[in-house]
Amino acid sequence: MNIYDISKIAGVSIATVSRVINNNPNVSEKNRVKVMAAIEESGYTPNVFARGLGLNTMKTIGVMCADSSDPYLAQAVYYIEQNLRKNNYDSLLSCTGYDHETKKKCMDLLLSKRVDAIILVGSNYVESDDRMNDYIRNAAKSVPVMLINAALNAPNVYSTLCDDFSATYEITERFIKQGKREILYLYNSNSYSAIRKLDGFRSAMKANKLHIDEKLIHFISSHSKSVHEVKQSIKSLCDKGITFDGVIASDDVLAIGAIKYAKETGISVPDNLFIAGYNNFDITEYCDPTLTSVDNKLPSLCTHCVATLMSVFSNDTSIPKQTIFSAEIIERQTTKLNQK
Amino acid sequence: MNIYDISKIAGVSIATVSRVINNNPNVSEKNRVKVMAAIEESGYTPNVFARGLGLNTMKTIGVMCADSSDPYLAQAVYYIEQNLRKNNYDSLLSCTGYDHETKKKCMDLLLSKRVDAIILVGSNYVESDDRMNDYIRNAAKSVPVMLINAALNAPNVYSTLCDDFSATYEITERFIKQGKREILYLYNSNSYSAIRKLDGFRSAMKANKLHIDEKLIHFISSHSKSVHEVKQSIKSLCDKGITFDGVIASDDVLAIGAIKYAKETGISVPDNLFIAGYNNFDITEYCDPTLTSVDNKLPSLCTHCVATLMSVFSNDTSIPKQTIFSAEIIERQTTKLNQK
Repeated sequence: MNIYDISKIAGVSIATVSRVINNNPNVSEKNRVKVMAAIEESGYTPNVFARGLGLNTMKTIGVMCADSSDPYLAQAVYYIEQNLRKNNYDSLLSCTGYDHETKKKCMDLLLSKRVDAIILVGSNYVESDDRMNDYIRNAAKSVPVMLINAALNAPNVYSTLCDDFSATYEITERFIKQGKREILYLYNSNSYSAIRKLDGFRSAMKANKLHIDEKLIHFISSHSKSVHEVKQSIKSLCDKGITFDGVIASDDVLAIGAIKYAKETGISVPDNLFIAGYNNFDITEYCDPTLTSVDNKLPSLCTHCVATLMSVFSNDTSIPKQTIFSAEIIERQTTKLNQK
Repeated sequence: MNIYDISKIAGVSIATVSRVINNNPNVSEKNRVKVMAAIEESGYTPNVFARGLGLNTMKTIGVMCADSSDPYLAQAVYYIEQNLRKNNYDSLLSCTGYDHETKKKCMDLLLSKRVDAIILVGSNYVESDDRMNDYIRNAAKSVPVMLINAALNAPNVYSTLCDDFSATYEITERFIKQGKREILYLYNSNSYSAIRKLDGFRSAMKANKLHIDEKLIHFISSHSKSVHEVKQSIKSLCDKGITFDGVIASDDVLAIGAIKYAKETGISVPDNLFIAGYNNFDITEYCDPTLTSVDNKLPSLCTHCVATLMSVFSNDTSIPKQTIFSAEIIERQTTKLNQK
């Protein structure tokens, strides 16, 4: 909703709308009432008035994440806020959940609060059905939209990602080089990032001419948040006679569930089973043995995202539309990736 | 800043201000310009206009937490948002850090966004120097202020707490009943909640006529976030010849650091050392042995806080100003609290 829409609703010229919101006296009372009614109807009053009155930017960035209790998203939000504050910007976070309609509603809410930009944290905001991404394109008509760990090619949209495909490809290949043939792949999401990780796993298996047993690609519902539930899920798989010599998980918590499974069934890690997680969060040090994991460079992603936004604000001429960081494998006690 | 302030700045009557912001035509152009200038000067334009135009509430609650990467605070924010959404309220989160001036600034930011109430999450918003709590009292003049795990007695302020004192008292007493005499108390904060926990520990020791060795009350900087750093801090204590037969920590991560210390030095847990944490988060199941911890009923606190806020909105006649929940000890593998 903008000045053009208001002029359409009111049935007056854009110049008239502009005069009303700038409180220029050269407007007939009749037209003023029409415009005010249209503004009220639009629900966008504060914005229009504030901008019309030439108030300065509020220096506030809207941040959206699906779930603030998800450790990856919570960390990302934390890094983003720290970086924004360093640049003297405040932030307002909206936790949207995973429902598409709620995401759209939260986006509208933030825009109505006169934010200067929107940062979407996490790969779940970009849908594989591209028509569903119109809410991002529309928002980008008003303010810059920054994506963390997702990509969308649209005007005024800037993406910062980690190369999850290559990271999973590499860890899979290093498992294979150490003689692992039956690798259990655990995942709990079908987000853009999750799909890239699984692609990396499949590609590495294919490149090494290994058969991919679909039964070893195991989805665990993200509702199964406790390691106990993950352990049970792996156990039920093994009860069906499925065997494996390595576990690669798309998330550290899933991998810790695998550690718990190994302990309960007396499998020696890493001697008889390699286990690797993804995210490289603090919890990789809490478990025993400590967990090998993929560092997806989240602090770098967030710093870069905010720096890019500041470049957009200062109208720099060359701003990258998309930036991809490389992940890094951090080896701990659950693997022996460097054996000769 | 309200309509009275605007009338004072503009040097016109309140009725005139009201007519201007309601776009009533019966105002001279001269007075209209004066009022608009005053509104612009005040910086409160959107609010004044929106309210003046009779726009409905935005049904948005401002939520403040110090640090979204702190697991306790992140969980609390998550529960609050879920409860607000169930009641058809949106939420805007501001992560304020621990600096007093920034907290005040973030409070102003949320108020300027026309939130219908403010929820302060965590015990760090109420200062022991009561004069520093004026920013809460002032905010409560505009909107209800809800406190989670802190208490402040002021009009339009509602507190929901967990009885941290009794919880630490009880776990300390149960350690003592199992013959523990030299209990290491680990903490990493001096917040209101942290002080109550330590008081509970001291009171239980005194009630059981045990000497409190101040060297066993060990502060670990909250900057030492990794379990490795916690482990090292305990180690340096032991290098000074300090011994203990139990560890009670004000936080699960500190307790996991103690588990790591015990493992490294070959101390058998729980046979030769009891360890207990606080918060009862998922990580108590990640470590090995799994960690006994205090469940501080965070979901109940958050549900109650939002329910109270809804009562405030519906002008219920009897609303509790302060509600205290009891914590519960959840025993896992690091203690044997029920031995005869």
